Amino acid sequence: MTLTLYELAAKNIQVSFSPYCWKIRMALAHKNLTADFVPLRFNELDTINFSGQSKVPVLVHNENTVSDSWAIANYLEHTFSDSAPLFGASSTLALSKFVNHWADTILAPAIAGLVVTDIYANIAQCDREYFRESREKRFGKTLEAITQHRDVTVHEFRKSLAPLRTTLQSQPFLSGNAPAYADYSVFGHFMWARNISGFELLDKDDSICQWRDTLLDAFEAMARNAPRSPIIGES
Amino acid sequence: MTLTLYELAAKNIQVSFSPYCWKIRMALAHKNLTADFVPLRFNELDTINFSGQSKVPVLVHNENTVSDSWAIANYLEHTFSDSAPLFGASSTLALSKFVNHWADTILAPAIAGLVVTDIYANIAQCDREYFRESREKRFGKTLEAITQHRDVTVHEFRKSLAPLRTTLQSQPFLSGNAPAYADYSVFGHFMWARNISGFELLDKDDSICQWRDTLLDAFEAMARNAPRSPIIGES
Repeated sequence: MTLTLYELAAKNIQVSFSPYCWKIRMALAHKNLTADFVPLRFNELDTINFSGQSKVPVLVHNENTVSDSWAIANYLEHTFSDSAPLFGASSTLALSKFVNHWADTILAPAIAGLVVTDIYANIAQCDREYFRESREKRFGKTLEAITQHRDVTVHEFRKSLAPLRTTLQSQPFLSGNAPAYADYSVFGHFMWARNISGFELLDKDDSICQWRDTLLDAFEAMARNAPRSPIIGES
Repeated sequence: MTLTLYELAAKNIQVSFSPYCWKIRMALAHKNLTADFVPLRFNELDTINFSGQSKVPVLVHNENTVSDSWAIANYLEHTFSDSAPLFGASSTLALSKFVNHWADTILAPAIAGLVVTDIYANIAQCDREYFRESREKRFGKTLEAITQHRDVTVHEFRKSLAPLRTTLQSQPFLSGNAPAYADYSVFGHFMWARNISGFELLDKDDSICQWRDTLLDAFEAMARNAPRSPIIGES
């Protein structure tokens, strides 16, 4: 069995920061699977043209190529059905999809609005022109303008985490007493911020911190010990 | 077996519009249970002092009194475990909780910002002073100021439904191929708006409409045929 995962890399090529790649990293670990990781910069994404599209993560397993993190998670669940389930019952799968979409449509752009200048600072020089142009087009303003007031806008961001916070106040994980894919689908975005920015998304007292810490420490602290970019605004 | 559900009533006392009560109405129907409904105005909530708190819904079943819609749903699931499950596996329950919190912390205040003047117009005269005072305090502005630009702000609202919309584009219900409590926990808020306001929350083309229609038609069109308040701005 050979598993290869194509990922996005920061300026420091060891830094994996794409939230979607992190979802799959956690999913692989959950299933006790190892993969060869292939880090790519934005300007190297031609490499994955064989997948029929241009976005990481891409998983290659023997003769199979799978793109899109949700599809990859489902592929892993089916293919390695003897290992720990990522979804459980079919209704759990359906609900995990909602959590996953919340993470991708609400959480992701909100985090981007706080750390996009740090991403810019921490991606490879050769990626900067593309990154600035595409992100400024998406947001309709300069990168610097996006994050200019983040010490204020972070409060709105923290409010927007209410569904996550409230859920974690009554159970240790989104998936209940043990983490599963729904947790990873959110956690991936926190890893994105952690590994590309020194900006702290959460209040120290936020109950989300404990959940995040637990996942940072999971699988022998795989996530906590992962290489990070230089921290902007810290030493 | 006697089930009694204390609910919130509009000016037209037949109009049940509280989203939390609607969650339980749907849950009862899902389990093929019937209850005596007791409609209360805000100023009659003393009636449920026996429950040890002041919010509807309150369910009374034989010698048991249960308040809080989430607690009531769980009570029904346990007590009537032979009927159709509201949650399924334990991980499904855990994830349903997230959906429920999303509905309550994000969807609910957003809908309120669009229909609060219609609520005011459609609640009983005796409730208006309390309603205006408490809601204006919560929002920090007059009711009229809250909804003044709703033809514009509704576009932001529709964007905020992305997690729901995206999920429903790939499966008929949040819970998968059949509706369950996660669906009702969101649908309740749509019933709230429907029954107290003529303001249309969704674009006709929105894929959420189909899901809403299906639930309106479920259980012999129980929700669709429920009494509504006079429609503000329509005939």
